[in-house]
Amino acid sequence: MIAAFQGVHGAYSHLACRQLLGDKVATLPCETFDEVFAAVEFGRAQRGVLPIENSLAGSIHQNYDLLVQHDLCIVGETHLRVRHCLLVHPTATRATLREVRSHPQALAQCNAFFARNTADKTRHPVKPMVWFDTAGAAKSLADEKPLHVGAIAGEFAAELYGLKVLDRNIANQEVNFTRFLAIAKKPVKIPAGIAAKTSLAYMPPRNEVGVLFKVLGVFALRGIDLCKIESRPNPSHPFEYRFYLDIMGDAATGPVQKALDHLRELGGDLRVLGSYASAAPEIVPKRSNTHKTKPTKDKK
Amino acid sequence: MIAAFQGVHGAYSHLACRQLLGDKVATLPCETFDEVFAAVEFGRAQRGVLPIENSLAGSIHQNYDLLVQHDLCIVGETHLRVRHCLLVHPTATRATLREVRSHPQALAQCNAFFARNTADKTRHPVKPMVWFDTAGAAKSLADEKPLHVGAIAGEFAAELYGLKVLDRNIANQEVNFTRFLAIAKKPVKIPAGIAAKTSLAYMPPRNEVGVLFKVLGVFALRGIDLCKIESRPNPSHPFEYRFYLDIMGDAATGPVQKALDHLRELGGDLRVLGSYASAAPEIVPKRSNTHKTKPTKDKK
Repeated sequence: MIAAFQGVHGAYSHLACRQLLGDKVATLPCETFDEVFAAVEFGRAQRGVLPIENSLAGSIHQNYDLLVQHDLCIVGETHLRVRHCLLVHPTATRATLREVRSHPQALAQCNAFFARNTADKTRHPVKPMVWFDTAGAAKSLADEKPLHVGAIAGEFAAELYGLKVLDRNIANQEVNFTRFLAIAKKPVKIPAGIAAKTSLAYMPPRNEVGVLFKVLGVFALRGIDLCKIESRPNPSHPFEYRFYLDIMGDAATGPVQKALDHLRELGGDLRVLGSYASAAPEIVPKRSNTHKTKPTKDKK
Repeated sequence: MIAAFQGVHGAYSHLACRQLLGDKVATLPCETFDEVFAAVEFGRAQRGVLPIENSLAGSIHQNYDLLVQHDLCIVGETHLRVRHCLLVHPTATRATLREVRSHPQALAQCNAFFARNTADKTRHPVKPMVWFDTAGAAKSLADEKPLHVGAIAGEFAAELYGLKVLDRNIANQEVNFTRFLAIAKKPVKIPAGIAAKTSLAYMPPRNEVGVLFKVLGVFALRGIDLCKIESRPNPSHPFEYRFYLDIMGDAATGPVQKALDHLRELGGDLRVLGSYASAAPEIVPKRSNTHKTKPTKDKK
């Protein structure tokens, strides 16, 4: 089994491939999301793995657009907990650290770490440096072996590139999940005893008042649970919307099949993006957002 | 009037301040979105201007979270068309260009430009270089005056920093809008004759099947138009959702006021984030997504 993902080895998307398809999955790093779709379409990979929504940054519309444009189907989902770690080359220490490389979004998500470092007069200030991606920043440490440079990336990147973890989970927000989808050419059988989820993209025939109320009635009146809803405006046509819906159940059987037939009666454009085994995110106990660093021992 | 925004002068957020509050508005650049909220709360600025959703990247949940956490209200909206341009110092030319700085997201959104440049054997290849933000990349050209370095940023950054625009709208996707909100301590009067919009955050008392159907009934049965809906899962509580809703009408009057009273009857946690003058995005005629560069004359 080969899985295509966007990014370089050690990226959160690479870890999502393993979480979805096992540690032994072979992976094909791609430069763009379009390339991930092309890799699956042309058979260079049997699966594509895509981030679809993040708990802080929201849904990735671009990947929804690609799902609607391509004739592939969703065959799985996983929720990956994003834990930004401070990594250095094994020869480097906290005392030698002067700058930290990462993607600007990761640097922004960890800005309290840089502020604390600057405020702590017993430490040298550490400067954030932009890099193309988190895993690429980690890889650069393995390549260059610098004493004064660290990277913010996942712990998985440290394992992969033989780096040392100085701090775990240094982000301002403790809870940060990304939901990833696995895509394939053909649907896969949902294991018995596992709840199924179905993802839909639906554009009503016209934007009349209450159209979504009717759409949701199709599911609510059959007792079908809704797990996600999102309206996507069409910038070219300000009064046209597409809705993204995730509902519990398998599109091929029972009440969901009937509900989808009912939805087709309403007209418009319905795309069933796939039915797959539903996966719940890890439960993180509620806490204040005040950051608490858990520094690891720096064996100097 | 002082408006706080996240980023540096010349950023798309800075342009959004002008689009919302006029060209003469004084602006306060902030490092983070939290600082924008603090600036308005502590009176250093009378308005905050925040990106809330992008047509490619989706809603910015972090800013919705901040709206729910803070006691400020939305007083306006605008849709800014993002047009990435290739900028250089006035002394530089296309022939001297070897690398282009920008935020990784902007570089990714323009990767077809780099690919075309590499494919065109009459041109020197141009290398993408990461920078903290688009406007910062533009500013660095004004500071350093390099002949071989360009930046991808908005045309507004070129005007502000006295740079030359080599190419307009070099992004792969022609249509890219960001919706910005203006926030303030107190609501403002909506001008007569302008349609009002109201933004809500609502968490139902419990996640029962069909709860959203009931919620939408509150609006649909009163003929109130829905312009946006989004479910936001709570990563700490997998079966708890918050919904973000935008509806047409003013929360203080008429059927919307009654609908909100009705919604309060259902229980749960309702936050009215503000009522404001509704603004429609510029209409972009539908076209194929195939990119066509419109090169401007390079006065060498």
